[in-house]
Amino acid sequence: MPLTLIGFIGTAAGFVSTITFLPQVIKIWKTKSTKDLSSLTLFFLFLNVSLWLVYGILINDLPIMGTNGIVLSMIIIMIYFKWKYK
Amino acid sequence: MPLTLIGFIGTAAGFVSTITFLPQVIKIWKTKSTKDLSSLTLFFLFLNVSLWLVYGILINDLPIMGTNGIVLSMIIIMIYFKWKYK
Repeated sequence: MPLTLIGFIGTAAGFVSTITFLPQVIKIWKTKSTKDLSSLTLFFLFLNVSLWLVYGILINDLPIMGTNGIVLSMIIIMIYFKWKYK
Repeated sequence: MPLTLIGFIGTAAGFVSTITFLPQVIKIWKTKSTKDLSSLTLFFLFLNVSLWLVYGILINDLPIMGTNGIVLSMIIIMIYFKWKYK
């Protein structure tokens, strides 16, 4: 199994991760509406990405810390929006 | 650094991952409304979790395959809902 393929997929996945919630943040910012978003799903996303960030810190892996740090900041913005635009 | 702590965090993260989008799927199923959900974010989620699934298959890791298989099925349901309830 070629390790370069795994490395490529990992890099691609990391890049897609960081931008995943950007369109959602922009959409809410434009529409000021979060009615259809599940609070519990936002909470689980927060929990999940926080655990990933802790994992990255524990194994001292900079890409995991960076990716999940960016994603976590977007999730926190969405939670703030969910609270602001009820 | 205790490996058991990393193992515990990984298991917790895996469990949270599998249930993350369940409340969102239930919410859409009840409200029949997906107006506030970003299609592009759903697409990025699909892409991201698909890459994780491929990664799990490539390194032959059953927990990664299982977790991402379940998450992917929920994302596909959300994309179907997004298309159905415009």
